[in-house]
Amino acid sequence: MTNSATNLRLKLPIACIILEVIIIILFGTLVQYDDETDAKLWHKEIANGSSNYDNNFYYRYPSFQDVHVMIFIGFGFLMTFLQRYGFSSVGFNFLIAAFALQWATLMQGFVHGMHGGKIHVGIESMINADFCTGSVLISFGAVLGKTSPVQLLVMSVIEVTLFAINEFIVLSVLGAKDAGGSMTIHTFGAYFGLMVARVLYRPNLDKSKHKNCSVYHSDLFAMIGTIYLWMFWPSFNSAVTAHGDDQHRTAMNTYYSLAACTLATYGLSAVVAHDGKLDMVHIQNAALAGGVAVGTAGEMMLTPFGSMIVGFLAGTVSVLGFKFLSPILEQKLKIQDTCGVHNLHGMPGVLGAIVGAVTAALATKDVYGDGLVCLFLTSWESVPSPGFMVKLPLLRKQTDAIKVCIHTTLPGEEGSQEELTTVRTPDEAEKLNA
Amino acid sequence: MTNSATNLRLKLPIACIILEVIIIILFGTLVQYDDETDAKLWHKEIANGSSNYDNNFYYRYPSFQDVHVMIFIGFGFLMTFLQRYGFSSVGFNFLIAAFALQWATLMQGFVHGMHGGKIHVGIESMINADFCTGSVLISFGAVLGKTSPVQLLVMSVIEVTLFAINEFIVLSVLGAKDAGGSMTIHTFGAYFGLMVARVLYRPNLDKSKHKNCSVYHSDLFAMIGTIYLWMFWPSFNSAVTAHGDDQHRTAMNTYYSLAACTLATYGLSAVVAHDGKLDMVHIQNAALAGGVAVGTAGEMMLTPFGSMIVGFLAGTVSVLGFKFLSPILEQKLKIQDTCGVHNLHGMPGVLGAIVGAVTAALATKDVYGDGLVCLFLTSWESVPSPGFMVKLPLLRKQTDAIKVCIHTTLPGEEGSQEELTTVRTPDEAEKLNA
Amino acid sequence: MTNSATNLRLKLPIACIILEVIIIILFGTLVQYDDETDAKLWHKEIANGSSNYDNNFYYRYPSFQDVHVMIFIGFGFLMTFLQRYGFSSVGFNFLIAAFALQWATLMQGFVHGMHGGKIHVGIESMINADFCTGSVLISFGAVLGKTSPVQLLVMSVIEVTLFAINEFIVLSVLGAKDAGGSMTIHTFGAYFGLMVARVLYRPNLDKSKHKNCSVYHSDLFAMIGTIYLWMFWPSFNSAVTAHGDDQHRTAMNTYYSLAACTLATYGLSAVVAHDGKLDMVHIQNAALAGGVAVGTAGEMMLTPFGSMIVGFLAGTVSVLGFKFLSPILEQKLKIQDTCGVHNLHGMPGVLGAIVGAVTAALATKDVYGDGLVCLFLTSWESVPSPGFMVKLPLLRKQTDAIKVCIHTTLPGEEGSQEELTTVRTPDEAEKLNA
Repeated sequence: MTNSATNLRLKLPIACIILEVIIIILFGTLVQYDDETDAKLWHKEIANGSSNYDNNFYYRYPSFQDVHVMIFIGFGFLMTFLQRYGFSSVGFNFLIAAFALQWATLMQGFVHGMHGGKIHVGIESMINADFCTGSVLISFGAVLGKTSPVQLLVMSVIEVTLFAINEFIVLSVLGAKDAGGSMTIHTFGAYFGLMVARVLYRPNLDKSKHKNCSVYHSDLFAMIGTIYLWMFWPSFNSAVTAHGDDQHRTAMNTYYSLAACTLATYGLSAVVAHDGKLDMVHIQNAALAGGVAVGTAGEMMLTPFGSMIVGFLAGTVSVLGFKFLSPILEQKLKIQDTCGVHNLHGMPGVLGAIVGAVTAALATKDVYGDGLVCLFLTSWESVPSPGFMVKLPLLRKQTDAIKVCIHTTLPGEEGSQEELTTVRTPDEAEKLNA
Repeated sequence: MTNSATNLRLKLPIACIILEVIIIILFGTLVQYDDETDAKLWHKEIANGSSNYDNNFYYRYPSFQDVHVMIFIGFGFLMTFLQRYGFSSVGFNFLIAAFALQWATLMQGFVHGMHGGKIHVGIESMINADFCTGSVLISFGAVLGKTSPVQLLVMSVIEVTLFAINEFIVLSVLGAKDAGGSMTIHTFGAYFGLMVARVLYRPNLDKSKHKNCSVYHSDLFAMIGTIYLWMFWPSFNSAVTAHGDDQHRTAMNTYYSLAACTLATYGLSAVVAHDGKLDMVHIQNAALAGGVAVGTAGEMMLTPFGSMIVGFLAGTVSVLGFKFLSPILEQKLKIQDTCGVHNLHGMPGVLGAIVGAVTAALATKDVYGDGLVCLFLTSWESVPSPGFMVKLPLLRKQTDAIKVCIHTTLPGEEGSQEELTTVRTPDEAEKLNA
Repeated sequence: MTNSATNLRLKLPIACIILEVIIIILFGTLVQYDDETDAKLWHKEIANGSSNYDNNFYYRYPSFQDVHVMIFIGFGFLMTFLQRYGFSSVGFNFLIAAFALQWATLMQGFVHGMHGGKIHVGIESMINADFCTGSVLISFGAVLGKTSPVQLLVMSVIEVTLFAINEFIVLSVLGAKDAGGSMTIHTFGAYFGLMVARVLYRPNLDKSKHKNCSVYHSDLFAMIGTIYLWMFWPSFNSAVTAHGDDQHRTAMNTYYSLAACTLATYGLSAVVAHDGKLDMVHIQNAALAGGVAVGTAGEMMLTPFGSMIVGFLAGTVSVLGFKFLSPILEQKLKIQDTCGVHNLHGMPGVLGAIVGAVTAALATKDVYGDGLVCLFLTSWESVPSPGFMVKLPLLRKQTDAIKVCIHTTLPGEEGSQEELTTVRTPDEAEKLNA
């Protein structure tokens, strides 16, 4: 206890204040408003014929706020189901999220490309920073109760940095498309957290296992977290997809996937329960796996039918994971996955990557029409943002899809693409290609 | 206990999985993306001059998310005020809502019209499915604590089906306008639930009445539900009204109705309380009656003044119902209305229908201008969606209003209507008439 | 107890019902739909070429709902950290907020200008009414546990009236710009509340001090309030700023200020804690000070760097205030500030006013471009709404900035202003100047 008191009294203030001062200095030297938040630049756009109502704020901010609620309320309260760590969960979640979103702005800015030596910030960088924060909070779920706040801050510094590099590799080098982050957010966050949990393995933690039990009110608080994550997952997956049908379709696919996943979770949970009662941990976690599993394919023409199959599978995999895999992870691999992130984010994330690859491989102009261009377009020279085609080297068929896309988007081509160009203002075209 | 365990162990998994498999098969054969979610169709619209920013997603999705929060957080936590059923409330609410929204998509699709044998889905079908789900959850409030999850799923299957048929009769056959669902959602849900409660009447439930008492923390959880319902009711009532002034006005009328209703509730609750203390059940429920009672008339030119009178009356009726009518219902009619849905949804819903009929009867072109067309337009040949005129056969005066509307909308007419046509793109006109 | 029972039984019903009847009568005689909520007037705009999608509803309603959540959930649950007053906090918060928003509509309408003897209402009046309500709830925090609901209603009547007058003086007479209300909402609310707390000083309240202690579940409920306030503060500060870059920039500046403030709060809280533990009261309150302190300057070109410095300072000042100033206030000035509103709203509000004045003084056309016009424009003859330049008489340098603004906006001038005029439709220009 004395140790922990010293830790908080000295190390936590030093960590918080030094990190914040470093961030402020870096923001002062490196960060600038982007075209849509800078008064002068935006009013140049206005002078060139844009309307204030074209500002991206109006098309992204409601999604951003939903994502924000998932990060701070959803993740924060989800983990309160462990009575012993209820307050740590919410309190530390708040601290590391507030830190990680600042650090993520810098790291994602560095890696994803600077503009004349400056990082440009606006609503999309805010959403991406929250996404990266989400990944850190997933890892937090794997180590909850085993770490001090200072260790969590150190973990955040490292994880955010690696997240940005991994995101760059997946989206830019491999050219994969992963708007809802099945791969970049969930799979990365889960396996990073499990790795840390392995390092922090303490055999005698077993003895305090009863502390992991949940109680009545803790379960109700946890349901606040669960339900907010569940409700706003459509916003999460669609937050940075292309405007128009993409955003609309992604939200709807996620909605159906989650609904099917919930039915699968309730059904399976009752089957595997030893006393025939629903296991609250399953409901609080596995019902969300449907959102994870359509993170990659959700913006494609997956159809409600396809989304429901994916959600149903994700819920099944997740409940079975909680029941059969988690004990094995702990006993054989010495990984104490406190909140079961392997079952909620790990396996469903891998499932999501596979579904995304398959769905992308099946993409044809017959199904997508001109939408294929916008959805799968890769601009090799520009800095990538989420919204690119799946180009996993393992999947040969993929490359055909790529060829189709590139062919379709070659500038100066004939056909429907030209029609498209004529009706778009330069500004709109720029946004589509952003 | 053994019985209940068997129920969960066998019946619940079977029910969940069979129902979900049926739904998935029906979605696979019958459900398609609509024009705004299908990549190919939307990009045809883009090629025809639409902008991505015209996608209905941007005008409906924030409302949808508010409605979603009402369904899953609002209804879920509202019912936690009964300590004994706190977790059932949230947990079963989650299950039946996730099921009902899928089933509602199919049933509403069947009844409200197919497109070449297919049900088209998009943001409006999502909102309508959530509305139907709300009706099921109202009924759930009447039978809370008396049903197993399997019984609730069976009830949902039946109620959603009847809801869709009733909605078709009210909106399409009778041609009534009921955007906020005073009639179709609240009145229907309440009386359906009361009917089921009557069937499930168990005289010895009286003995366990003390379990119905609320406690400190349960009351705080219930207030989460109440306040979310209260705050987002303006979004609920305006979610599927016509774009523009209709949506704006509906939200505002609901806001004022609820504020006035809350003052009436606090005032009346203190009057009727036996010990001079505010009754938490009144505050958690009756304060919401103002939202129910402007569900039909809210989109009309009810004025803030009119909305407040309606809200004040609704709060009064609801508190008096809790105090004097509920005991009578239980003793004389053998209806144990666990959450008092008759007081929150039943009577205020009927009040709302009456207010809607009167307000519609008073509608004149002098007050609405060209807005009369959009608000009260009925297209008899096309598939109806909420947003139609009240045509209750009982109200003769009504028909005059209808004649005015139809007259005003006759194609090829002179005057302001023609001016309107000239400034609208075909796409906008289509949306207005949708 | 008998006394309190009588109070509730007689005085509360009388107060609620008489106040509501007065409000309804005043609404009936004085309040009208504005151009965007009135069916006839809006359809005139449509006939003149506007689109339904131009309705201000779509650009303000999501922000309004976020503000609404802050008022009813944020303030309501924030104060539950005092276990003794948990339910009072939420229940009375609900009552006085529902009353204050109606009264504020009238008072702000009177003071800020009538249109032909009528108060016009729409989404902006709704946001402004919620803002005024926020100020009342801040004062409520200072007197929590010392007042009956009837006293709170009386306080609301007086405070709302004075708020409207003060707002008129600050925004219209002094011409200050204060979109997020550092001055008009937070500083006013805090010092009004402290004044009332001084009047209500009861020396023997000390003896029941242990009732002020917080407990486990209360802390979790309070975190719901804190986190909702924290998340939606960007919406609060940007809700009534000008459309386009202003709204976008304000939200982003607030986001960064709050993140930096949170790190400062955790750091400082651990330093000043007597046992090396984080003080939950600090985290629940001081972490929010960053939102208060950028309420005035947030819409200016403060930069993320500047916002973070302001947030860091606000968090520091707030934690130190809780630790060192609150005991002094109670002992020396006999002010029992129950929730510490002086530390959360008082001092950070004053800091925000200073930051706003300095930032406005540094505003140049070089930084803002044509945006300077829109941001700092003052129309002396028209009714002011938030969104005007800081013109505190104390700051001489300010007047230069004013001259620049006025110079830039003179009608019929040469240069970029003319370019601007040519691309704007009359409707857009009107909105910009609104």
